[in-house]
Amino acid sequence: MDFEKARQLVDGELEKYPFSRSPAELYEPVRYILSLGGKRMRPALTLMACSVFSDAVHQAVKPALAFEVFHNFTLLHDDLMDNSAVRRGKETVHEKWNPNVAILSGDVMSILSYRILAESDDQYLKELLHLFNATAMQVCEGQQWDMNFETRMEVSVEEYLKMIELKTAVLVAACLKAGAITGGADPLGSDLMYEFGRNLGIAFQIRDDYLDVFGDPKIFGKKIGNDILTNKKTFLLIKALELSKGKMKKELTGWLSGHDHNPHDKVRSVTEIFASLKIDRISSGLAATHYDKAVQYLERIDTPPERKAALADFARDMMQREK
Amino acid sequence: MDFEKARQLVDGELEKYPFSRSPAELYEPVRYILSLGGKRMRPALTLMACSVFSDAVHQAVKPALAFEVFHNFTLLHDDLMDNSAVRRGKETVHEKWNPNVAILSGDVMSILSYRILAESDDQYLKELLHLFNATAMQVCEGQQWDMNFETRMEVSVEEYLKMIELKTAVLVAACLKAGAITGGADPLGSDLMYEFGRNLGIAFQIRDDYLDVFGDPKIFGKKIGNDILTNKKTFLLIKALELSKGKMKKELTGWLSGHDHNPHDKVRSVTEIFASLKIDRISSGLAATHYDKAVQYLERIDTPPERKAALADFARDMMQREK
Repeated sequence: MDFEKARQLVDGELEKYPFSRSPAELYEPVRYILSLGGKRMRPALTLMACSVFSDAVHQAVKPALAFEVFHNFTLLHDDLMDNSAVRRGKETVHEKWNPNVAILSGDVMSILSYRILAESDDQYLKELLHLFNATAMQVCEGQQWDMNFETRMEVSVEEYLKMIELKTAVLVAACLKAGAITGGADPLGSDLMYEFGRNLGIAFQIRDDYLDVFGDPKIFGKKIGNDILTNKKTFLLIKALELSKGKMKKELTGWLSGHDHNPHDKVRSVTEIFASLKIDRISSGLAATHYDKAVQYLERIDTPPERKAALADFARDMMQREK
Repeated sequence: MDFEKARQLVDGELEKYPFSRSPAELYEPVRYILSLGGKRMRPALTLMACSVFSDAVHQAVKPALAFEVFHNFTLLHDDLMDNSAVRRGKETVHEKWNPNVAILSGDVMSILSYRILAESDDQYLKELLHLFNATAMQVCEGQQWDMNFETRMEVSVEEYLKMIELKTAVLVAACLKAGAITGGADPLGSDLMYEFGRNLGIAFQIRDDYLDVFGDPKIFGKKIGNDILTNKKTFLLIKALELSKGKMKKELTGWLSGHDHNPHDKVRSVTEIFASLKIDRISSGLAATHYDKAVQYLERIDTPPERKAALADFARDMMQREK
């Protein structure tokens, strides 16, 4: 099953799902954030991973939706904690309503994700539930590390990689593993699928960090340099702080302190520092390393190559994407 | 199993439970709010309900802890939404740390409650999970109705009763039913246990509302009249708004509007209005009606009376409590 077909299936199932309506203040924000769209990458991966092992892709629908609702719950609460005003070009929930609505509708989405997961076929429920629990906790831990890094000057590359693994990669990995489980994969098959996803997720996040600085403004869709403006501890910044010395280090830390910099100057100057340290190449190289690992795990899965072709294509497109 | 023994068992199991420790900002608030104590009423009821049907009370421990962690998660987020500074005589989590810590550590507690539930014996897992999901969603709905009522002048007694059923009573009911399930009760037995709990929970909340106004200041522990000062839509206020007419109604709504009332005068005057409308007797009567229903459900459960005596004693004590 290719990505586009999986995405359409997810959208159709999400539209059909009988979310409650009353009280409106609780459930309207749930429909709202789910209606903002997004790529539906995670649930589509669940369906695609299932189809590697089985043609009964319907078995993967409930876990796919559960992970998508959970992912959107984390976005809803993250936006509130980060005080972000915009999500996918629209107002965030706490802006459109208020912080209390964002807290409580997020809470009910988290519970909803479990309710949907519990509608999975009985034979897979226990394994799915354990996977879901462990992953959901790790995502919270990753978000906490990410918030901790905001107020710390020193963050190592190793700590950063652990953070994005928890915050981003394990969810991609779990979505793929859930697909494998409901496709009837043996334990080795579903573990290999998990490792494919974990490495792909890390590569994906490093690519995200890269595009925010070195993306093509005409294609990227969002404003280039937003992470630089907010001093976000991305791989690029952490590596630049590690590699820069003397005058350059002083210049870089100068841009990170104080609030009265001209935004345009700050983005341009920090990007120049990154470029002169070859951070663009280093980051592409690290993403490629994780991508290669991911592909190797996918290759080790014991099914005919044509069943894995869609996932291989998706992974390649992810790495080549410009937005 | 009597309440005190059940409570001690819960405290011991909570202390033993291997909650994660890192990152500290995420998990310290979890230990903190669980360490504030409280009566452990809900998990103790799970153990007591299990012991009505079986001596293998250990089967009820995981669901009991899951419900207690879930309940504390809702307190943590409710305190943030209500901007309450104090919980059980100590600083609330968002006061001691900050709102973001309260949001994210609450989120992880909600997930933790599912992780603990998933450690229940396989044979009960599916039924427990469905009960837990349905209940958790209802608790969120009840909290939303409660918040909606704050900004509405007109709330009917019927709406109020529905709200406390969702916000408070179904959780008590579900705790008891979870105990019945893990005690091996048949469907009728666990449904009767649920109805016992639902009615007891409603009676419990009406008693809470009553004590806030008519409690003995020397015994109550908290300041009398706090609900009056915050214009909280309790049963007492809703009923008084329904029954008062003419000059008295005008006086009551006068106390509800404006912010410059002397707190002592406001509590005294509103209490006098309640008393002259016999709201104290009406509210005690309604609590007694639900208590009587609860007891009837408990009596219909098909086990020897001595196995149900501890629950009957607990329910009676709840109704006679002064704090």
